Amino acid sequence: MTASLDRAACEALDAADPLAPLRERFLLPERVIYLDGNSLGALPRTTAARVARTVETEWGRDLITSWNKAGWIGLPRAVGAKIARLIGAEADEVVVCDSTSVDLYKLAAAALSLNAPRRVILAEAGDFPTDLYILQGLAGSVGAELRMVAPEAIEGALDQTVAVLVLTETNYRSGEIHDMAGLTAKAHAVGALTVWDLSHSAGVLPVDLNGAEADFAVGCGYKYLNGGPGAPAYVFVARRWHERFRQPLSGWLGHARPFSFVDDYTPAPGIDRAQCGTPPVLSLVALDEGLNSFEGVEPKALYEKAGRLGDLFIALVEQRLSGHGFEIASPRDPARRGGQVALRHPEAYAICQALIDRGVIPDFRAPDVVRFGLVPMYVRFADLWDAVEVLLQVMQSGAWKDARFAVRAAVT
Amino acid sequence: MTASLDRAACEALDAADPLAPLRERFLLPERVIYLDGNSLGALPRTTAARVARTVETEWGRDLITSWNKAGWIGLPRAVGAKIARLIGAEADEVVVCDSTSVDLYKLAAAALSLNAPRRVILAEAGDFPTDLYILQGLAGSVGAELRMVAPEAIEGALDQTVAVLVLTETNYRSGEIHDMAGLTAKAHAVGALTVWDLSHSAGVLPVDLNGAEADFAVGCGYKYLNGGPGAPAYVFVARRWHERFRQPLSGWLGHARPFSFVDDYTPAPGIDRAQCGTPPVLSLVALDEGLNSFEGVEPKALYEKAGRLGDLFIALVEQRLSGHGFEIASPRDPARRGGQVALRHPEAYAICQALIDRGVIPDFRAPDVVRFGLVPMYVRFADLWDAVEVLLQVMQSGAWKDARFAVRAAVT
Repeated sequence: MTASLDRAACEALDAADPLAPLRERFLLPERVIYLDGNSLGALPRTTAARVARTVETEWGRDLITSWNKAGWIGLPRAVGAKIARLIGAEADEVVVCDSTSVDLYKLAAAALSLNAPRRVILAEAGDFPTDLYILQGLAGSVGAELRMVAPEAIEGALDQTVAVLVLTETNYRSGEIHDMAGLTAKAHAVGALTVWDLSHSAGVLPVDLNGAEADFAVGCGYKYLNGGPGAPAYVFVARRWHERFRQPLSGWLGHARPFSFVDDYTPAPGIDRAQCGTPPVLSLVALDEGLNSFEGVEPKALYEKAGRLGDLFIALVEQRLSGHGFEIASPRDPARRGGQVALRHPEAYAICQALIDRGVIPDFRAPDVVRFGLVPMYVRFADLWDAVEVLLQVMQSGAWKDARFAVRAAVT
Repeated sequence: MTASLDRAACEALDAADPLAPLRERFLLPERVIYLDGNSLGALPRTTAARVARTVETEWGRDLITSWNKAGWIGLPRAVGAKIARLIGAEADEVVVCDSTSVDLYKLAAAALSLNAPRRVILAEAGDFPTDLYILQGLAGSVGAELRMVAPEAIEGALDQTVAVLVLTETNYRSGEIHDMAGLTAKAHAVGALTVWDLSHSAGVLPVDLNGAEADFAVGCGYKYLNGGPGAPAYVFVARRWHERFRQPLSGWLGHARPFSFVDDYTPAPGIDRAQCGTPPVLSLVALDEGLNSFEGVEPKALYEKAGRLGDLFIALVEQRLSGHGFEIASPRDPARRGGQVALRHPEAYAICQALIDRGVIPDFRAPDVVRFGLVPMYVRFADLWDAVEVLLQVMQSGAWKDARFAVRAAVT
């Protein structure tokens, strides 16, 4: 990036962007710059009709018969297969079910059990909170030990006591990417298994689980996968574990013959045993549509554009916002950065509110980060110019101070 | 019921039925008699518009801001409060989250933990399979012992080794109702806690959890509550346990301050700590609409009608289907029977298929039961006359044999 950045230069980047037409696959509100698709992905153009059909025809008209007739019972695997392509997995290694939190519990428990008598779960301090909370709950329940260490201490903490290393590949706050292949190899070298959380990776990075020889993974359906609010999550289990893994949430849809109604649990072959209860079909069909928006799109191309969006955003912040107290809290090297750029500022919360009031939607991550999600499917280069322009106005006018006082008044 | 039953007599019952207008709250397909609302409840008239608004406006236009603006974050409690009224609970004792299977795991684990060092889970052989499977998974994971006994042996099996008794109040197959208050008192007398599964009770029986001094309960959102396919489930925790219960699936939405993003889990006060991950919002708003269909309706009135529907159905079967090999597999006393009547027949599967082919939809429960769900919100007395008429035709014509051969051919 050069010092000559202006809006026309950004528009030129959009004009030359081969992915620009993908934006048409989404319905985005006018006069809003949406930079939070890494928290809740935008609405695909086809989703409303699909959900309406499921409600009105499949549920309303065909009722219970839709479990077979409309294929509801097969959706967890069919949608899982669409995700598999984005994360370097085989179609039969991924199934959609439950939430990321619940799925992480299942897989960390499965890994602990496979690696008994080892009982240490190694995790990263500052990882996405629900991951750490779930591991605390699991450790307390089954008598394991959770060790949380700083990111730079992970490698050193991998020793022969560790049963399983649980890590989010792309940090939810900074966007920094772990070396999945390298850390998995180091874990395996000491006999530890790995569970990767792909929530901030899948759909924007070219994840390669099998290339990295990962054992287990989970991920979120409502961020880059555009599955809608609270869309169900997914589970990956490498095929080499299909025969041996067992997970404790052994509900009927993970049974080998769920409709035999026998008293004893027999795990289904392969990935299906990761399922538990009946899936939330309306949310599941929305996720299916979300994944259809990736048709013909290669993760590598998305990542390349995400990197360029991030580089531009950092350059704009440095060029136009110097002296306003922002610190770039994400890696500058796009190869080490996911689909977001985080800015640190002591008044991050109030600034974030002031931006939202002006139609620029990032999000706040406590205590001091404004996080800008640069989703390559629908964020334009010119959007970043405009967003930084609004941010500059907020800072120059002191408008964020009003937001700060409004917020503090509301809290007290 | 007398020997003079005919269709006109059934129509007269409908004409005199004060609940008959409730049927208008649902969209039911023409030329279908739906007797499976205890497996998947019918579509309420208002649901499609509500879900469409959530997809198009709340998600599509307002995006991430809808967590606050549209109240998504409060839905688990708001919907829970609507369920509370139907199950004899206080509004702050119920929250909607996850599936029945996942919720049962949470509560059985919580009860075990509260009642340490006892480690026996007592359950009923032949209870709904996912309940037994989940308890097997939990027992294996935390080192507890699952004892499954026949229904008539439950009382005798309650001794001072039992940590928790887990029972479905209304049997999914026969519809037989357990004495919740009596068994809870007997459990408490030996120091055991109780987890009740209300899946086949709530929305058709006047459940009274607090009257029975129940400790914990779970239930399904997609049967009598009309929440749509795979609607999320709910959790009840009696207020006296709110300070002390802990459940292992300690995801971020059960945290005291979920958006503080700190590393350590602190359980939220009260029922909120039963929550885990992000709820599937589309499925959750459909459940909310499902519960709106109960507005102004008393469970007691529903149950009274369900009893009369069941009595009529049994009388019609006995009057018109004698000699065709059916056995009534549900209690004849309506006070001991939920909202369904089960018929046992050696060719139950083929008969069920033949009925479905003719627009009468019950369901099959292995190995030999055809289960007729008599949902008082929308099933009419005359529907039962017509359903038995079709069943009679199927048996007299031998049409079920075609279904049987078709099915066997499909299986081989």
